[in-house]
Amino acid sequence: MAGGIGSRFWPLSKDDHPKQFIDVLGTGKSFIRATFERFIHDVPVENFLVVTNVKYKQLVLEHLPELREDQVLCEPMRRNTAPCIAYANYRIRARRGQASIVVTPADHLVTNEAEFMRVMRTGFDFLETPQGEDALLTIGIKPSRPETGYGYIQTDSNEEVGIPTEVKRVASFKEKPDLQTAKRYVEDGHYLWNSGIFLWTLQGILKAYQSHLPELTRLFDEGKEIFGTSQEWQFIHRQFPRCENISIDYGVMERAKLRYCIPADFGWSDIGTWGSLYEHVPHDANGNALRGNVTRVQTSRSIVNVEDGVQAIVQGLDGYLVAFRDKSLLVCRMEDEQRIKEWVDAQGKK
Amino acid sequence: MAGGIGSRFWPLSKDDHPKQFIDVLGTGKSFIRATFERFIHDVPVENFLVVTNVKYKQLVLEHLPELREDQVLCEPMRRNTAPCIAYANYRIRARRGQASIVVTPADHLVTNEAEFMRVMRTGFDFLETPQGEDALLTIGIKPSRPETGYGYIQTDSNEEVGIPTEVKRVASFKEKPDLQTAKRYVEDGHYLWNSGIFLWTLQGILKAYQSHLPELTRLFDEGKEIFGTSQEWQFIHRQFPRCENISIDYGVMERAKLRYCIPADFGWSDIGTWGSLYEHVPHDANGNALRGNVTRVQTSRSIVNVEDGVQAIVQGLDGYLVAFRDKSLLVCRMEDEQRIKEWVDAQGKK
Repeated sequence: MAGGIGSRFWPLSKDDHPKQFIDVLGTGKSFIRATFERFIHDVPVENFLVVTNVKYKQLVLEHLPELREDQVLCEPMRRNTAPCIAYANYRIRARRGQASIVVTPADHLVTNEAEFMRVMRTGFDFLETPQGEDALLTIGIKPSRPETGYGYIQTDSNEEVGIPTEVKRVASFKEKPDLQTAKRYVEDGHYLWNSGIFLWTLQGILKAYQSHLPELTRLFDEGKEIFGTSQEWQFIHRQFPRCENISIDYGVMERAKLRYCIPADFGWSDIGTWGSLYEHVPHDANGNALRGNVTRVQTSRSIVNVEDGVQAIVQGLDGYLVAFRDKSLLVCRMEDEQRIKEWVDAQGKK
Repeated sequence: MAGGIGSRFWPLSKDDHPKQFIDVLGTGKSFIRATFERFIHDVPVENFLVVTNVKYKQLVLEHLPELREDQVLCEPMRRNTAPCIAYANYRIRARRGQASIVVTPADHLVTNEAEFMRVMRTGFDFLETPQGEDALLTIGIKPSRPETGYGYIQTDSNEEVGIPTEVKRVASFKEKPDLQTAKRYVEDGHYLWNSGIFLWTLQGILKAYQSHLPELTRLFDEGKEIFGTSQEWQFIHRQFPRCENISIDYGVMERAKLRYCIPADFGWSDIGTWGSLYEHVPHDANGNALRGNVTRVQTSRSIVNVEDGVQAIVQGLDGYLVAFRDKSLLVCRMEDEQRIKEWVDAQGKK
């Protein structure tokens, strides 16, 4: 899933260049590239599908030149994750009778890739057991702090006969909590961060859509014969606007019965904010995270991120964010970063 | 005189684009353009000469397209103001028997242009009197504060018979003083800031060079017949490196007898620092001086100066300087601006 926009990383991310396409960590790889490479040793390249907005199709192909053009599924507009995943399901069904599927956002960070793939394999193994074949499996992240920016998954403590001990039943999904609630979740031990990564079989997810999103299923069923043909884009272009704007969490997971979760710990972050980025990159002796040609003087606990070709001198900053990309400059206090979107919007109105 | 370099306004000014060519005030005019336009109503366009480094010749012609190419006198290297002015003197002599000359830096600010030209006319009128014909006349600025960044001119209190009351004898030139001395100067009332603007006749300045810089005079005399011809650049290219590296102040003014000064008050600054720029530009309600497409939030007493085409958002700054030009970014505390040169040099060594 690579259709997101988001101006929280402005000016690095913009509507024409959103977060999944930026190398915010300075690793030399964009998020989408890192996501692709995370799977490439275990998944044949022809089995990848990327769902994105039509305006990002070329960007996807630039970042993932291994893909054929028809592996990039284009949404004509934003309709949240349930229609996005439905589109991929129908394309997969058109090509193969059955499949094990992992659905993942393309703009998250994973630092322990070996552990990540071990968890993936544990999940796929479970999908191949009798109990797993219709299961909707999510990955829950063991919380390291009472984060209020994530949704939580409450797992059941009871072990279930016939399923691996690593796989837990989901008791409920919880929205982003306030700090007190988040603290309670972390102490309780049964609550996990909702990573937005899902594993299921084609058969399992199609059944779940049929049960919980019958109208969406009907809209896609109309084009059953069209997926994988040259008329697919035309069909999607007509049908997509009619789809309900709903997330897979609300539309399917919260309503489903056979939902499971693997608690995992592979250095995950959705890097939704500059602050979470700061937590995940190396710092110099003064606690600065620098990217690009940056000379810093008397500067501490700051992020300075400038595009290649730009030389920067920063002095006298503590706890600031300085970013330059594509003729846009941001200088602000890191603690006020949640207001970036508001400033960018105000700027647009000038 | 438009040969200066200077990195104190980095990144707006750089070696390839020094201060005289920048519109640091956001008026729409570079300093050299403003200097030219200050005189254009009183001086025929063919009478202007610009002395600059050979590498800035094209820049001068871009900023002053009214000039013919041969009105830009090129120095092959920096040799301070005495050789620079000598060059202009010899060119003028090759073209005309006599002349009244005003010599001015091309990178200073004057806010009251009418008063400036009134002072110029007072000076030229004096040069046409018997006492004025060999006089070396400088413009002294009535000090508004005990500035330690300028040299001072001490004037004589005695009025002299036969010269206008506005014109004073110079008692002595003073180097940049310490704060205590500067305060004494301001209280005394006879001390003026040395503006570096001079008026004299061709005859007067040539006599002064002969008396006080005989070796420099000999070097230029060798090419007497060559100035104004196609061999001039070749001659200058050979002779300039042999010239003493000396200012007009040390070389001529401090040694001369017939030196005069007009105390003036026309809103002058050499804008040698970001701080002095800040004093001379309009501020918003929070005391910010902004140039370019700048959105400011919770920002006060700061300069934000970005080139056209760049959009900037700054937040949470008090007393800072933010400048972006030509792929270079500076963010620093305004009070530390005297260290900019040091940082730029350190950056070059990285």
